[in-house]
Amino acid sequence: MKPMTLDAMRETFFCALLSDVLDSLGYRDQALPPSIRPLDEELVMAGRARTGLFMDVYAPPSAGENPYALEIKLIDSLEPGDLPVFACGKTGRIGPWGGLLSTASMVRGAAGAVMDGLVRDIREIRAMKFPVFHAGIGPLDSKGRGILAQIDVPIECGGVRVAPGDLVFGDADGCVVVPQAIEAEVIAAARERLKGERGTMEALRAGRKLGDVFTEFGVL
Amino acid sequence: MKPMTLDAMRETFFCALLSDVLDSLGYRDQALPPSIRPLDEELVMAGRARTGLFMDVYAPPSAGENPYALEIKLIDSLEPGDLPVFACGKTGRIGPWGGLLSTASMVRGAAGAVMDGLVRDIREIRAMKFPVFHAGIGPLDSKGRGILAQIDVPIECGGVRVAPGDLVFGDADGCVVVPQAIEAEVIAAARERLKGERGTMEALRAGRKLGDVFTEFGVL
Amino acid sequence: MKPMTLDAMRETFFCALLSDVLDSLGYRDQALPPSIRPLDEELVMAGRARTGLFMDVYAPPSAGENPYALEIKLIDSLEPGDLPVFACGKTGRIGPWGGLLSTASMVRGAAGAVMDGLVRDIREIRAMKFPVFHAGIGPLDSKGRGILAQIDVPIECGGVRVAPGDLVFGDADGCVVVPQAIEAEVIAAARERLKGERGTMEALRAGRKLGDVFTEFGVL
Amino acid sequence: MKPMTLDAMRETFFCALLSDVLDSLGYRDQALPPSIRPLDEELVMAGRARTGLFMDVYAPPSAGENPYALEIKLIDSLEPGDLPVFACGKTGRIGPWGGLLSTASMVRGAAGAVMDGLVRDIREIRAMKFPVFHAGIGPLDSKGRGILAQIDVPIECGGVRVAPGDLVFGDADGCVVVPQAIEAEVIAAARERLKGERGTMEALRAGRKLGDVFTEFGVL
Amino acid sequence: MKPMTLDAMRETFFCALLSDVLDSLGYRDQALPPSIRPLDEELVMAGRARTGLFMDVYAPPSAGENPYALEIKLIDSLEPGDLPVFACGKTGRIGPWGGLLSTASMVRGAAGAVMDGLVRDIREIRAMKFPVFHAGIGPLDSKGRGILAQIDVPIECGGVRVAPGDLVFGDADGCVVVPQAIEAEVIAAARERLKGERGTMEALRAGRKLGDVFTEFGVL
Amino acid sequence: MKPMTLDAMRETFFCALLSDVLDSLGYRDQALPPSIRPLDEELVMAGRARTGLFMDVYAPPSAGENPYALEIKLIDSLEPGDLPVFACGKTGRIGPWGGLLSTASMVRGAAGAVMDGLVRDIREIRAMKFPVFHAGIGPLDSKGRGILAQIDVPIECGGVRVAPGDLVFGDADGCVVVPQAIEAEVIAAARERLKGERGTMEALRAGRKLGDVFTEFGVL
Repeated sequence: MKPMTLDAMRETFFCALLSDVLDSLGYRDQALPPSIRPLDEELVMAGRARTGLFMDVYAPPSAGENPYALEIKLIDSLEPGDLPVFACGKTGRIGPWGGLLSTASMVRGAAGAVMDGLVRDIREIRAMKFPVFHAGIGPLDSKGRGILAQIDVPIECGGVRVAPGDLVFGDADGCVVVPQAIEAEVIAAARERLKGERGTMEALRAGRKLGDVFTEFGVL
Repeated sequence: MKPMTLDAMRETFFCALLSDVLDSLGYRDQALPPSIRPLDEELVMAGRARTGLFMDVYAPPSAGENPYALEIKLIDSLEPGDLPVFACGKTGRIGPWGGLLSTASMVRGAAGAVMDGLVRDIREIRAMKFPVFHAGIGPLDSKGRGILAQIDVPIECGGVRVAPGDLVFGDADGCVVVPQAIEAEVIAAARERLKGERGTMEALRAGRKLGDVFTEFGVL
Repeated sequence: MKPMTLDAMRETFFCALLSDVLDSLGYRDQALPPSIRPLDEELVMAGRARTGLFMDVYAPPSAGENPYALEIKLIDSLEPGDLPVFACGKTGRIGPWGGLLSTASMVRGAAGAVMDGLVRDIREIRAMKFPVFHAGIGPLDSKGRGILAQIDVPIECGGVRVAPGDLVFGDADGCVVVPQAIEAEVIAAARERLKGERGTMEALRAGRKLGDVFTEFGVL
Repeated sequence: MKPMTLDAMRETFFCALLSDVLDSLGYRDQALPPSIRPLDEELVMAGRARTGLFMDVYAPPSAGENPYALEIKLIDSLEPGDLPVFACGKTGRIGPWGGLLSTASMVRGAAGAVMDGLVRDIREIRAMKFPVFHAGIGPLDSKGRGILAQIDVPIECGGVRVAPGDLVFGDADGCVVVPQAIEAEVIAAARERLKGERGTMEALRAGRKLGDVFTEFGVL
Repeated sequence: MKPMTLDAMRETFFCALLSDVLDSLGYRDQALPPSIRPLDEELVMAGRARTGLFMDVYAPPSAGENPYALEIKLIDSLEPGDLPVFACGKTGRIGPWGGLLSTASMVRGAAGAVMDGLVRDIREIRAMKFPVFHAGIGPLDSKGRGILAQIDVPIECGGVRVAPGDLVFGDADGCVVVPQAIEAEVIAAARERLKGERGTMEALRAGRKLGDVFTEFGVL
Repeated sequence: MKPMTLDAMRETFFCALLSDVLDSLGYRDQALPPSIRPLDEELVMAGRARTGLFMDVYAPPSAGENPYALEIKLIDSLEPGDLPVFACGKTGRIGPWGGLLSTASMVRGAAGAVMDGLVRDIREIRAMKFPVFHAGIGPLDSKGRGILAQIDVPIECGGVRVAPGDLVFGDADGCVVVPQAIEAEVIAAARERLKGERGTMEALRAGRKLGDVFTEFGVL
C-alpha cells in the first residue's frame, strides 16, 4: 500500500480519531494540552516536525551577535510538509512566531507551526490561512527575551515529546504527535476505526439508545 | 401564575440578570468561574441538572468491564429539558464529552451540557447548535483516564454546588446555578429587575449622566 | 510637526510595532500579559489612561453607602479619547465592567476600557463595537465583591505600570502602555520602523530567503 | 456551665478535633487552606478575631499621609485574647506583619495573628513565642504596596469567612474559624468527641484491627 | 547474591543516588515532585507500594454507608515493609492520613506512607517517627470530601506512576519509585555508583579543582 | 570611610532592613519572592553574584559532550565572597545544586548559592553550614534536563534582575539583591536606619502605644 500523503490525512482524519488510536496502541501521552490552541479553528494541519529549543535570556544580544541565526537557518531549510515545533519553556516570556515567519514558512510549503510559546500578528496570520498552534497571544518580540538555542533535536512541547520527523496533526480539537516509528500502524488503525465512528453516529442520529449502539459498534 | 417554561426563560433572561438576582437574595456563589466557557457564545441554555461525578483512573478498564456504563445509563435516561452537569476534578485529564454524547443527548431533548472538564469534536457540536459549557478543549478520550463513578448526586462543578434538579442557565457571559428551592423566587425577582435594567440602558444611551441614572433606577 | 491624533494612530500603528519600538528604547515591560484579551479582535483601540484601583470587599455595602460612587465620578468625567484602566488584583472576584458602563463611556467618547478583572454583557458590548480588554468573562456584579477605592492614581494593570494620561494602544495581538514622557519619541520611531516591516514582508512574500531579507532590512 | 477560657481551649483542644466537630455540624468551610502555615509549629493559638482588610496600592503614600493609620488604631486597641486576622488578597505583594507589630500586640495580650499575606522578622517572632499564621515569608514592607483599608468588618482570609469576634484556633495542623453563633455548641461537642478519639488511639496502639476499632468507637 | 533487605537499603542508599541510577537506566520520571515533602526530614523510608486511589465526593456518606471501608481493608491487610501510596488528585480537598492511620500502620510494620494529598496530626506522627510524605498539612477529615475508591491498582501519585509492589524510597531530598521489574538492576547499579560519589566528595573536600575531579570520577 | 566587609554586613544587617532601605531609594523590585527559601534559616549570607543562566534540554548529552563544562568553569573560578546565582526558568525540571557543588564552592570561600531551581543533598549541605537559597527540594540531577548555557551575564532569578558583582544578602526572611551602583548608598542608609529600628522596638517592649512610638521614630 502506498504511504498516505499529508494532504490525504488532512482530508480524512481528525485529531480525536488519531488520539483514540494512539491510546489504543498504548501511546497515551501524545496530545498537546488544552492550553495550546489553534489560531484558526477552521484549519486542519498535518506535517513533519522540525524541532527548535528556545532558552530564556535577560539581556539584549551583544554587538555583532545575530540572535535570529538559528531561526533563519531553520526557516530557510524548510521543505514542503515540514512543520516547525518550538519548545519555549514556562516563563511565558518567549513569543517566537509572527507574520514574517509565517510568510517565510508558507512560501516554502511548510505545513504550519506549533509552539508552547506566544504568537503575534494574529490577524495577518489568519488571513494567510497558515495553521499555527500556540500557548498565547502577545505583542512581544523574542529579542532580548529568548533565543533559539538548538534545532532538530528531541524536545518537549507542552509536555509532549517531539522528535524531528514525527507526524504532527492538528485541528480545532487540538494537536497530537505521532512518533515516526509507529506512524504506519497508526494510519492503518485510524482508517479502520473511522468506520465504527460513522456507524455509531448514524445510529445515534436515528434516535437509538446509546447502550444499544455501544453494544453494536464498541465506540464511544 | 403558571410556572415559566425553560423556553420562556431562554428568551427572556440572561445570565448576568439571574446572577444579580441570586446575589440580591444572598446566594452569592452560584456562578461558574470564568474558566468554564460556552463552546458557542451565540447560544442560550436553560435546563435541569442531571449530575455526574467523575473519578480519575490510571489504568485501562479490565477485560469485560464497561467504563461507560453509568454514562450510558445517564444519557439514555435523559428527559427533555434535562442537562448533564459533570464534576471532573482538577487534574485536567478528564474529557467526558464529545460529538457522540451531544448527538445522543440532543435527540432526547437535552438542554445542553456543562462540565469542568474537557470536550472534543467541537466543530461538530457547534454545527449541531447544542450548548456545551466546558473547561477546555482537547482530543483525549476519557477511557483509562476517568470513569463516571456516581450519577444524580450533589456535586461541585467549577467550585459551585449543583444538586439534581437545579436550574442551570448559561449564555455568552457564563453559567449560573439556581437551587431548586428558590427557583420561583428567583424567577419572579428577575422579571421585576428587567424593567430597571431597560430604563437604565435607555437613559444612558440618551446621554444622561451615570450618576443621575443610577439615582433614578438604582441599577448598575 | 503636529502631534499625531488618536485616530491616526489607530489607522497607522499596530500593537506589535509599538511593542518593538518600546523594546528598542529600553522600555521592555510595557505589554499587558496574554491573559488580558480583547473582547473583539477586529477592533483597534488608542486612548489616554484614566486609572482606577479596585479593592476586594467581602460584605455588601452598608445602608446609605453607594459602592459605585467613584465609578460614577470617573465615568461621568470622561473626555473624548479617555480610556478607563482598572487594576482589579488577582482574586478573580472583581468584574467591574459591563454593558451599562460601556454605553455610558461610549456616549462620552471614551476610546475603550482595559482591566485585569472580569467583564459581562459581552454580546451587547461587541454589538456596540466598543473596545474592551479584560482578564475573563463572567456574570458576577462587583457589588459586595469589590469597590473602586482610588481613581487617577498610578496603578499596575496585569503587572504593567499605568499612570494617568499614558497612551494605551490595543489590537488583536494585545495591549501596550506608552508612558507619557516618551510618547513623542515612540511615535516618531514607530513611523520610521513601519518602512522596514513593509519591505521585509514584501521580500518574504516574493520568496526570498529569510537570511537575505534580514540582512537587508534588519527586521524580524 | 461556665464558658471555657481561651487558655483552657489551648490546653484541651487541637485543630483537627475542632475541624471534625465543625464538619459534623455542617460547617465544612472553616479551615484555612494548607498554604497558610504557622511560623512555629510548637505553639497552639486560640483567640477572638479582630479583622482587617488590605488593599493593593502601587504608589508610595502622599506627603502627610500616614499609610499605617488603621494598623496603629487596630493594634493599639487590642484587648487580651484578641487576634488580628488580615485579608491580603492574592497578589502576593502584601506583607503586613513583622517583629514590631508582634511586639506591640504581645504586650497588649493578643493571642496571635493570622493573615493570608507575608510576614518578616521571623526569627525574632519565633524567639518571642508569639503565634503567627501566614501565607509566606519575605522581607518586603507593605508601604507603597498595600494599605489597611477597613478594620472590624467581615473578611475572607485564605478563602474562609471571618467575622469580628469569631473564635480562631490554630496549631501545627493549621487553623480553623469557629463562628461566634455556634461557639458554645462546638465547644460542647469537642469535649464529647475527645473521648472517642482517645479510646480509638489506645485500641490501635494495642494492635487491634482498624475495622474492629472503628466499629467500636466510630471515629477515624 | 541475596536480595537486599529494606533495612539495608535504608542504611546504604539515599534518594538522589537512586534517582541518578534510574536516570542512567533511562527511567527519568520516577521522582515525586518537590511539592511532596517528608513530615520529618531526619527519617529514611524504604517500602513496597500498596496503592490506593481516592475520588472527590461532595456529599456526606448516606446512612449505613461506611466511607472508610476500603481504607480499613487496606490498613488491616498491611504486611511488614508495606507502604500505602495514595493518589488524591489535584483538588487539594482530600486529606487521607493522620495519627490514627499512622498508628494502625506502624503496629503492622508498615514502612511509611506517601500521598499527593493532605495530612494531619503531624506532631503526633512525628513523635512516632513514622515516615510520611505528603502534599500539604491541614486539619480536614476526608469524610464527605473523598473516598478511597480502589486499592491495589496502578495509580499516579504526584504525576509518577506507581504499581502495587514497586519499591518506594524517600529521604529529606524527596521520594523515588523503583518499578519492580528493574529493582534488582537498580540496586546493583546503586551499589556500584556509591564508590564514585565517595571518591568525588573526598577529592573536593581536599580542595582539588572540580574539573580535575570530574575528569577522574565522572560523577557530578 | 573604609568599605564595609561582607563579614561585617553579615553581622550587622538583616534582610528586611536592606529591603526597606532599597524601597526608600526607589528600588522596589529587589527582593526574591517567598517561593525562594533558605535551606537553613539560622544562616546569614552576604556575597557578590556570579551569575549563571540555565536552559532546559530534553535529551541526554551527546557522546563526548560535557554537560557540566560551564558549571565547572564557574565553580573553579570562584573567589572568596563570590556567590553563584542561577536562573533556572519555570519548568521546575532543573536542579542545579547539591552536596558536591556546595563542597567545591565552600573550599574556595564562596559565600553561598542562590537559585530559582531545585537543590538536593540537603542534609549534607545543612551539615556544612553553607547557605543555599532555592525554589524547591528534589533528587533529580540536571543531566539531560538542563545545561548551564551562559555565565557572568545579567539574569533574572525569581523575577529579580541580578548582574555579575551585585551584592546579594539573605537570611531567614529571604534574599535581596543590591545593585553594585548603589551599594555604598544602601550601606550608609542601612547603618542610619538601624538606630530608629532599635528605638522603636525598645519603646514597644516597654508597652508604649504604637501610635506614639511611630510618631517619635517614624519606623514601622
